[in-house]
Parts: sequence; C-alpha cells; structure tokens
Amino acid sequence: MKKNAIVGQSGGPTAVINASLYGVIREGINQEAIDHVYGMINGIEGYMSGTCMDLTADLTSDELELLKLTPAAYLGSCRYKLPEDLSSPFYPALFEKFRKMNIGYFFYIGGNDSMDTVSKLSRYASHHHSEIRFIGVPKTIDNDLVLTDHTPGYGSAAKYVADTVREIVLDSSVYQQKSITIVELMGRHAGWVTAASALARKYKGDNPVLIYLPETHFDFEQFTEDVTAALSKNSTVVICISEGISDARGKFICEYADAARLDTFGHKMLTGSGKMLENFIRDKFGVKVRSIELNVNQRCSGMMASATDIEESVLAGREGVKAAVSGLTGRMISFIRNENGPYHLECGTVDVNEVCNREKLFPSEWMNPRGTDVTQAFIDYALPLIQGEVQRKTESGRPVYLYRKSPVQK
Amino acid sequence: MKKNAIVGQSGGPTAVINASLYGVIREGINQEAIDHVYGMINGIEGYMSGTCMDLTADLTSDELELLKLTPAAYLGSCRYKLPEDLSSPFYPALFEKFRKMNIGYFFYIGGNDSMDTVSKLSRYASHHHSEIRFIGVPKTIDNDLVLTDHTPGYGSAAKYVADTVREIVLDSSVYQQKSITIVELMGRHAGWVTAASALARKYKGDNPVLIYLPETHFDFEQFTEDVTAALSKNSTVVICISEGISDARGKFICEYADAARLDTFGHKMLTGSGKMLENFIRDKFGVKVRSIELNVNQRCSGMMASATDIEESVLAGREGVKAAVSGLTGRMISFIRNENGPYHLECGTVDVNEVCNREKLFPSEWMNPRGTDVTQAFIDYALPLIQGEVQRKTESGRPVYLYRKSPVQK
Repeated sequence: MKKNAIVGQSGGPTAVINASLYGVIREGINQEAIDHVYGMINGIEGYMSGTCMDLTADLTSDELELLKLTPAAYLGSCRYKLPEDLSSPFYPALFEKFRKMNIGYFFYIGGNDSMDTVSKLSRYASHHHSEIRFIGVPKTIDNDLVLTDHTPGYGSAAKYVADTVREIVLDSSVYQQKSITIVELMGRHAGWVTAASALARKYKGDNPVLIYLPETHFDFEQFTEDVTAALSKNSTVVICISEGISDARGKFICEYADAARLDTFGHKMLTGSGKMLENFIRDKFGVKVRSIELNVNQRCSGMMASATDIEESVLAGREGVKAAVSGLTGRMISFIRNENGPYHLECGTVDVNEVCNREKLFPSEWMNPRGTDVTQAFIDYALPLIQGEVQRKTESGRPVYLYRKSPVQK
Repeated sequence: MKKNAIVGQSGGPTAVINASLYGVIREGINQEAIDHVYGMINGIEGYMSGTCMDLTADLTSDELELLKLTPAAYLGSCRYKLPEDLSSPFYPALFEKFRKMNIGYFFYIGGNDSMDTVSKLSRYASHHHSEIRFIGVPKTIDNDLVLTDHTPGYGSAAKYVADTVREIVLDSSVYQQKSITIVELMGRHAGWVTAASALARKYKGDNPVLIYLPETHFDFEQFTEDVTAALSKNSTVVICISEGISDARGKFICEYADAARLDTFGHKMLTGSGKMLENFIRDKFGVKVRSIELNVNQRCSGMMASATDIEESVLAGREGVKAAVSGLTGRMISFIRNENGPYHLECGTVDVNEVCNREKLFPSEWMNPRGTDVTQAFIDYALPLIQGEVQRKTESGRPVYLYRKSPVQK
C-alpha cells in the first residue's frame, strides 16, 4: 500500500536548502511506494500547530524548477527542540497526525538540531513499533556536521565569500595610502566559512593576508605583531575574521568592545568583532581602517550560489528518499568524496545519533602554526565545492524565485 | 601631428569605472589623431608624483577585455582637490608634464570632484592658450550628477541592491515570529541607491515595505507610526534606509548614536543609522529586530554588475574620446534617454562647469507624500538600467579580473 511522505526545513536559511527540498519532491514523485509528498510549513513546530501543504499537488513542474534555485527556505523554518523525554505527550500527538495523513516517510532538512529531531523521532518510532521511516538530509553553511565530507550549503557560502572578498580586496586597493580592511564572516564556533576567504586570493601573497578562525585562540599582542608585519609588506591589508573569535580564556573578542557605550536614548550599542578590531587598530596604528560585516547574504545568496552545491543538494534530497524507501530509518545522508583522482562525490548514510549534538571544527592541521592562515590542503578541499555558476530565469532584470502562497491548513 | 592621450580615475570605486576606461582605450586606439593612451596611476595626485603607464603598449587585447569586466579602479584612484587659485604653481608644473609627454587629450573618469578637476584644468588651459582638450567621463553609483539622465555605475549598484535585498527579504521570511530587518544602504545626501531597493519587490505590498531617503526629513514619531502600521499588516517587515537620513534639524540619525567620527576629510563617518534604528525598534516594540549594512560591494560587485551599465559605461568612454578629437574641451559626456518608446540612450556633452559642485537629489515627486516609498515613475526610470547579467571568464570557479602590475615610473 502506498504511503505519503512529509518533509520539513529547519534552522537557518541557505542558498540550497530548497534544492534538497526539490530533490525530495522529485524523487518522491518517482518512487512507486510514495503517494503524496507533504511539506510542513515552519518545520515540526508549524506542523504541530496545523500548517502543511501538498507539494506534489500544489506545485507545477515549472514551479519545482524555480524552487530548485530559490534561496532561503520555501517551507519556512523553525528552531524547535523536541522534548528530551520520549514519554512526553508531544510524541503521541505528533504520531497521531502522521497516522491521519498516512505518513510513511519523514524527511527533515537541516543541521545539528534538526538531526536531533530525526534522532528522537526515530527512537520513539522504534520503541512504539511505528513503521514510519525518519531520514535526515544535511544542510548548513557552517559545514560543521560530522561523518560527511561537507554539507549542502557550504559550497555556496564559500563561493559567496571567495567572490565577495575578492571584490573587497580590489575595492580596498584603489588608494595610495596605507589601509586596513577587516571583514567579519559567519561562524560562531567553526571557521569553515571564514577559511573560504583564502579562495579570494589570485596570487601568492594576495589579500586577505591574515585569516583568524574561532578554532585558534585570538591574542591581541600576537595580532599587533601580525598586523605590523603585514603593514610593512603591503600597502593594503585585508584581514578576515570569524564573528566568533575568542581569546585563550574563552572570552569573545566582541565582548572587549566598550559594551557600556550608550546611545542618546540610553540603549547599549552592541559591537561586533570586526568593529572591535577596527577600533583597536585605529587606536594602535593610526592608519585608515574600516570593518565590513558580511551579513545574511553569505548564507542565502541565490545570485552567487555554487552550481555544484545546488546539484549535490538535490542529490542529498533524492538519496534521502531512496534510503527511506529502501527501508532505512534514523539515518542521515552523508557525502563521501573519492580519495584519489578528480573530484567525485557519492552518497552514503550514517547513524543520525552519531551526528546530532556534535560539531566538526576546522582541522588544526589545515591552519598554519601561527593560526593566521589556512593551508593548501584546505584550498584543495574547498575548490571543487564552489565550481559552476547558476543559469537562472530572470524577469525585468531580476531573478525569479518561487514564493509560497498562504499555507494550507490541515 | 598625432598627440597622446592620458586618462585617470578618481573618487570611489564602481563596478564599471573600468568599462569606461576600456572605452577610452579602445576608442583611443581607433582614432587616427591619437598615438598612445597613457593612464595616470592614482589619478592626478599619482601623476604629479610621477606614476603612469602606457595603456596602449602594456595591455593586450585579451587583457583589455578582462579590464572591461573588472570592478573597482584598475588605475587606482585619488581624492585630490586641485588648487582653487589658477595661478598656483601646481598648474604650470602639471602642464609641463603634459608637454613632455606630448599630451593632447585628457580624460578624467569620476564624479562631482573629478568634474571640478576637469573644470579647473580646462579653464587654466583656456587662459594659457593650451590646445590640450579636457573631457569628463561621468562615474558615480550615487547617480547625483546633474545634466545627465543617469550616471555610469548607478545601474550596477541598483541591480546589486535589488537582487541582494530580494535575498534578504526571503531570508527574513522563514520564521513564524514577527520580525523587523533594517537594511542600511549607501547615500549620504542622495537617495538613489536606496530607492533601488523598491526593485526587490515581486508583488504589490512585498518587502521592503518602508523606504527612507536622505531627501525626506526623518522623524522618530512618524517612524514609530509607520512601523506600527507595517507590523499590523506584515509578519515580516523589511525597512531600507539611506546611511545619510537626517531629521528636520539636519542632524544625522546615526549621530543619535554616540559613535560618529570624522574621516580624514573631516566628513562624518556614517556607519550607524541602521544600528541606531535597530536599537530604537528593539526598545520601542520589543520584537525581533536586526540591522544589515550593505557595504562596499554595493559599489564594486563585479559578480552582480548590470550588463546595460557596463555597455553604457564603455559608450561614455568612447564618446569622451570622440568629443575630444572633434575639438571639444571643458565638457562632460552626458546620457540622454529618449522620451517615448522603448528605452534608448544617446550621448551628448554638457558644460563641465555646470556639473561640478552640484548634486542631483532624488526628486520629491518620485516619493509618496509620507516619504516612505518611491513611485512607479521611479521604477520605470530605474528598471532599464539593471537589465542583463554579465558573462564573465572564470578560473577554478572564481571570476577572472585584471590586476595591475607595478606602476611604470615616468
């Protein structure tokens, strides 16, 4: 007997989370065993409050193709942690909803926290002899999931950072006077996104000449030495830092900003790490300095998405459906890169319980000993992930994305 | 007898200032009357200190094609105001350099301040019976030059803002909870760049639902009413503001934060309007709020440049050379749009003295009476300028730009 599938998106937006959704829907349509593919609006939280839609019935094939290249999260997202206690009434209520909708397959596209959701649901199902299969489809620009070569979303973020920092380097280099530009990039704990700024370099010694990740303790004295050395060699110095750099005591650098500064309304003005270091350099060196915080477009730029990332994200969605139909549950799709020869990717599955609540940090062997640059091994790892630009439909000069109509109430 | 030409770039970088440089070089090669085309490194300031290069001899045809699509300012730039007093020894020193290099044609690509340079040099030349012809080629993302339909650089900035804000709107809309996102855009006095955020909308009522330009006095009470109304209609509210919004007393909104500093020109550094309003909203409304400052990539994004802007910028450079060869001096190239029918552009020239030191502000008739949105007339004006994406050469997944080798000393 055919069963229905349901899919949700969770956590922060990316440029390619909808490509994985596309993969789930397309493969769901392909599979004999699957009837409808439903979408939870705003993840498990929205689904519990009654919102979902029929993705197989409500979207045309043309709309699906638009979905594939639409950034952010078409279904809407949530940040909702399921109860730790599997005897919570939350679970039977949820499974009753599944039963009513004849759900046989559940897909959740997201990062660490989403894998925690898949873990809990699959464990609950196992205890209660439910036949519903639960599969996690990885997604995070942070690239911090374990047991996968990389995560869907990282390649596009890396491409955005590489191309955008290259533009900033050109912009910074137009005047004669010495100047320092600090670029603050995403990454509270893991430096993968910031590391990608090394891809902006065109030649050896090109900017950014200094790169600081959260994995290395930041030290103001060493920073002063690093900047002094950089200024002696370069008229234009571009420095890339993660938002989450912290010192040996674990104190975030942004916390060193004069947090007591109030505006005229008496509000505290919060300052980021980039702004903090900008002020530090201005005081210490007296050179022209500015800081730039690359913001949410790092994670959601449709215009600068990596075509490789899009295709791999579609694959992750498709493979998720195939895994579920083949009988697997409590697994996350993982990417396996061939060890030798040209870049080639295959998918496998891993135990979702071993993924959730763990973080894959940037490896120390891919940093130089001083903690101010990444090595060629990282460049070799990251370059294949940013290949290819997306050919997208435009309308009056602007990209066409798929917008959700009002949610269907169930 | 053949004469040489010299060209410089001045003021802030744009995505297309090199396209105009390309136009000058290509047309310089075309023209019988012109022998070499020299480039001043770092504008008139660098030239006075002895740095320039031979653009016709030093660049291959392939390199020229790369130059056309390279953002920022290939020759380097300067912010250098020529002496007001035309009897200053600066002028004979400069003209002696021109004489030694057999310069007959001088092109300066830039905005207001650069046109001031062209004005002074052409007036000095006139007083001293020099036959050198001085032509200004317009350039500024601010679109604030008078006597031209628009300026090269504006279309690309507008396209970047439209596409980037559309991504921010999608990113902002993924969660269920009410939220406000403030996007701070470039524009100290003129609101043209911020106005382009209206192009991000896909449908009537789409975000950004509020747009504030420097041309309208900002009022905190009215802002509170506007935000209240917007929140009652929309779960997700995106607000776009110019960095230079100010109140009826002329006080910049960012000055209500305490951190305003002066840059090396004594300009106030305007980096805080968005952050200021973020704090104001958090305090007043208690909703989830964040601010995003779109930074220098607004002006220098090669990846998201407008193909129309690139082509028009090339045209401006070419027309500058033609104008000089035809005998004109003390003129700026201007864009003339056909009044009726489909978008079509022709070039003319205008008196550079009437351009310099004036600003074309955003017209009040293109704002709604409340000063919170632009009209359809502006959309109709701006849309043709953002058409077309650039097909560029890539290398290992990254855009290939032309980098300058060490400057040639003369």
